[in-house]
Amino acid sequence: MAKTALNVDTDALTQRITRSPFAGSHKVYLPGSRADVRVPFREITLSDTLIHDGAGEPRREANPPLRVYDASGAYTDPNAQIDITRGLAPLRHAWIADRGDSEALPGISSAYGRQRLADPALAALRLHSAPVPRRAKAGANVSQMHYARRGIVTPEMEFIALRENLVRAQLRERLATERLPKPGQSFGAALVRDITPEFVRDEVARGRAVIPCNINHPESEPMIIGRNFLVKVNANIGNSAVSSSIEEEVDKLVWAIRWGADTVMDLSTGENIHETREWILRNSPVPIGTVPIYQALEKVHGKAEDLTWELFRDTLIEQAEQGVDYFTIHAGVRLAYVPLTANRLTGIVSRGGSIMAKWCLSHHRESFLYERFDEICEIMKAYDVCFSLGDGLRPGSIADANDEAQFAELHTLGELTQIAWKHDVQVMIEGPGHVPLQLVKENVDKQLTACFEAPFYTLGPLLTDISPGYDHISSAMGAVNIGWYGTAMLCYVTPKEHLGLPNRDDVKQGLIAYKIAAHAADLAKGYPGAQMWDNAVSKARFEFRWEDQFRLAIDPDTAMAYHDETLPKENAKVAHFCSMCGPKFCSMKISQEVRDFARLQQASTQSAQVIEIKRALDEKAQEFRERGNEIYL
Amino acid sequence: MAKTALNVDTDALTQRITRSPFAGSHKVYLPGSRADVRVPFREITLSDTLIHDGAGEPRREANPPLRVYDASGAYTDPNAQIDITRGLAPLRHAWIADRGDSEALPGISSAYGRQRLADPALAALRLHSAPVPRRAKAGANVSQMHYARRGIVTPEMEFIALRENLVRAQLRERLATERLPKPGQSFGAALVRDITPEFVRDEVARGRAVIPCNINHPESEPMIIGRNFLVKVNANIGNSAVSSSIEEEVDKLVWAIRWGADTVMDLSTGENIHETREWILRNSPVPIGTVPIYQALEKVHGKAEDLTWELFRDTLIEQAEQGVDYFTIHAGVRLAYVPLTANRLTGIVSRGGSIMAKWCLSHHRESFLYERFDEICEIMKAYDVCFSLGDGLRPGSIADANDEAQFAELHTLGELTQIAWKHDVQVMIEGPGHVPLQLVKENVDKQLTACFEAPFYTLGPLLTDISPGYDHISSAMGAVNIGWYGTAMLCYVTPKEHLGLPNRDDVKQGLIAYKIAAHAADLAKGYPGAQMWDNAVSKARFEFRWEDQFRLAIDPDTAMAYHDETLPKENAKVAHFCSMCGPKFCSMKISQEVRDFARLQQASTQSAQVIEIKRALDEKAQEFRERGNEIYL
Repeated sequence: MAKTALNVDTDALTQRITRSPFAGSHKVYLPGSRADVRVPFREITLSDTLIHDGAGEPRREANPPLRVYDASGAYTDPNAQIDITRGLAPLRHAWIADRGDSEALPGISSAYGRQRLADPALAALRLHSAPVPRRAKAGANVSQMHYARRGIVTPEMEFIALRENLVRAQLRERLATERLPKPGQSFGAALVRDITPEFVRDEVARGRAVIPCNINHPESEPMIIGRNFLVKVNANIGNSAVSSSIEEEVDKLVWAIRWGADTVMDLSTGENIHETREWILRNSPVPIGTVPIYQALEKVHGKAEDLTWELFRDTLIEQAEQGVDYFTIHAGVRLAYVPLTANRLTGIVSRGGSIMAKWCLSHHRESFLYERFDEICEIMKAYDVCFSLGDGLRPGSIADANDEAQFAELHTLGELTQIAWKHDVQVMIEGPGHVPLQLVKENVDKQLTACFEAPFYTLGPLLTDISPGYDHISSAMGAVNIGWYGTAMLCYVTPKEHLGLPNRDDVKQGLIAYKIAAHAADLAKGYPGAQMWDNAVSKARFEFRWEDQFRLAIDPDTAMAYHDETLPKENAKVAHFCSMCGPKFCSMKISQEVRDFARLQQASTQSAQVIEIKRALDEKAQEFRERGNEIYL
Repeated sequence: MAKTALNVDTDALTQRITRSPFAGSHKVYLPGSRADVRVPFREITLSDTLIHDGAGEPRREANPPLRVYDASGAYTDPNAQIDITRGLAPLRHAWIADRGDSEALPGISSAYGRQRLADPALAALRLHSAPVPRRAKAGANVSQMHYARRGIVTPEMEFIALRENLVRAQLRERLATERLPKPGQSFGAALVRDITPEFVRDEVARGRAVIPCNINHPESEPMIIGRNFLVKVNANIGNSAVSSSIEEEVDKLVWAIRWGADTVMDLSTGENIHETREWILRNSPVPIGTVPIYQALEKVHGKAEDLTWELFRDTLIEQAEQGVDYFTIHAGVRLAYVPLTANRLTGIVSRGGSIMAKWCLSHHRESFLYERFDEICEIMKAYDVCFSLGDGLRPGSIADANDEAQFAELHTLGELTQIAWKHDVQVMIEGPGHVPLQLVKENVDKQLTACFEAPFYTLGPLLTDISPGYDHISSAMGAVNIGWYGTAMLCYVTPKEHLGLPNRDDVKQGLIAYKIAAHAADLAKGYPGAQMWDNAVSKARFEFRWEDQFRLAIDPDTAMAYHDETLPKENAKVAHFCSMCGPKFCSMKISQEVRDFARLQQASTQSAQVIEIKRALDEKAQEFRERGNEIYL
């Protein structure tokens, strides 16, 4: 087991993290109503289409750049100065301070936090400077839900509206040339025409969306999780008792957001997790989630029965003051549900769930998380930490999917959602896990009802158990479906799931699979403008603009490397064919010829035959409209 | 460009192909009614479960071995003698000869075949011996459909019944201990309790399933493609003008079946494709498909307009006499449909489709494939070649999915299906391609109706266009859904799709993704016994039988390698934890403790509270039953 040395090699870390923008892409910022609302996007420059419609030089037709959602933060902005030992610029600092409802504390409130700070042996593990923690003033509530319910549109909400609306906005700009998107099936999601700050506020007020943004994490760029917005992806990182270091985890963070992680969970269970978390938070432009019970268990040396409310409470405060944006809390694992798992094939597979189950059984008492839920809410609203109500009884195998234990807990999560909302505390609900495809939809349907449309946040689900080593694939298959049905955020699974701790490449593989799933779900829902990206790729492909295809690919590096493996020469990148079929057999090339030919022959091909076919198809279309345009009858 | 040298390095090839069985697996053969019906399976040996229920030595409980479908042929049987230069043993030779309706020909019938044979420069490219081709006697029809319709159960059908029924048969053997499978949703598939030879015959007679088995490919182990059987996977291999050799392609074949390819398509478009095909066929235990128009185009030096019926006919006979089991024929690309593609984003992306479109336009004539379809059927039934009616107008992008051109062609494929069936010729129908998730089901629904339930065979579909480099993933996401809805065979897509020619590892990656999709589709349909495999994996996982988990994994090598990356020591393979969480945090371990604890406490936990919850859940279940157990309302 590789133990962490008691220092952080910041030079090596700075060298290690990847900061270069993707080829052909640069960062653009969209201005908001105030100077410090600057919403980042990645803009992909595209080359011209060459049209050979006569003799001589081809005519050029410009392809407008494509702007895409960008979670990668300042790291991909070459103009940004980043010192990893000091953390990112606190973008939201003024917004938080200006609200006047929170105050800087004289020091760290948690006993554990103070103890770590006082330990000189840990000095070399700390960042150059830790920010002063803030907390709501006595009686105040600093949650975005609280503002939303009082009708206040925060800068965070405005930022999000600009961020989420860009896809639609571009679509309008391009409407003249853009292909009509396919009609979606959103299963009742409210996909509006324009995402306004007011729409964001309303969704947060209703509890249908959350903005995880602890006031002690001012470095974060606001983002939203809700069924009526783009489907998001979470990446889990974190060390364990047998592996990894602070350097590796910070590097994984930056790497994860490069590949599109919208939030990152630090699931560390190994050494120095307090300090590791500080490094992650200060350097993260995306919300950070944790499972506080992991650290609490660490503090009682792994003996679940020794956990106490006081110790857990101190851990919540410790992490809230560091800036954790959402906490997974398994308050739905009630004593009475534990026996429901006894006959399962794989029992309880959630770590948090099994810890709490063990605690409940050994004390034969109701869970303190459940009993103290109001007190937990008080802490959450003092820092604006969002609940991610953990599914401690989620199924760990196909055999255990959608069983009594799982749905009993879900019902309790709904009850807790109502309590949290009484406190104006934001809530999302975690979901499974392992579910066969025909039972996936039931999870969403039940969750929407039981939890009053609070955002659903699922792990996969894996559609089969037979794929260790490829669980990122079998779970991404579940993820695209559950995302389509209405899940707001998909927690990735890496190829190492069930086998080992993910390394850098595993993190990337997991993210790519899940970004594909999230985008495919957006398309299926009919998210306005989502298809623009696909159209840009396909147009580039059809026109043999190879460089543009690489730039537009979800992973430009891999797309180019795979192409170059068979046809590495520079001139192959302008070739009107590829290695799959070679020059003579290229269907794209023949198809272009067909198109040209068809243009010339237009008069003659508009024959009676074509007209007859068109008529028959029009009839079918008419029938379809008469049936109410319903694809699923 | 690497040109093929005019010889085949058979020593290198023999060295190269992988023949070792998977660790812990061995080949078993189930006997049929005659000595030469021996149906191969892979049997995975599992270790005992250790139960610590008292002091002293743990009690042992045996885990029965799991038998799984095995497409890998004799290559994974260490007792089989294989000489790659002579090909596999002709398993079906006697079955074919015994029927007395075919005869050995005096030589090759096709002009091109004779020309190749007469060229001494090609001698070094040939196998040691080519078999004598057979053909139906004058007036005879040797198709399995013809036998089926006359009520004859062939040895091929019996072989298939044993092969497909094994999963169910094992389930019954294990019923006492096996978990009840989840109820499936099969969208009207006829999943029977027992797969009998008679059931196989009936499905083939109705045209709902096909058995691709050319009488000139006696080396093939019979398999079936139909919605009421296990979902199958096809792998494409083949060289192109810019890459690959005979050695590479034969190696890819053996590699593909090792990873579960149920059929293999040889899509060669480069040099020496006649000889390459001979090597592939003689060494293949799975049906081989081709797209004859590729070779025909090769013969006219890539000029589509120079294609003629005579040349195409000669190509069909050439390939039929080599033993190709199914032909993709794009007879649905009619002249009148071509203009329907002119306004598409990506035109015609099928190579065969674009070739035929170009031919039709340049001659301004109806496709000779369409006009000569009866004549093609005559050839098909003389060798039992199965149609795979190509979707030459399939969409090549999300924007073009489910459009007029696509469905106009599908309608014609239905018309051609009826013609083929009049000849008792077997038919499957090819499908897309690129389709957003919400439009996938429409493809199956329309195909089932338009083509009278002939088996559907789809390429993916990709759910988005943005994933070059990962199209095996975005298409496997579509494949699992389309498989669930009723597609009988899934054509894999490799990571190199749209970028380059797949190499050995790409073939494996594509296959694994698709085998996961096919199995997950079987599970979702509720295929009897499919869940047994998942249960075996999950039980091994829960009991920390690491070696068993690896053995049961869809890719044992990768599962073990990933595990060993973090915890390589031998004793980690018996450890009751893994590197993800480390020893203290293992939920599986805690969950086992919970289970033990619960057993001890059973009396006290069966409290009023639990009874109350059970009552509420029973009520819900009752409600559910009253609604008719319908998951999808």
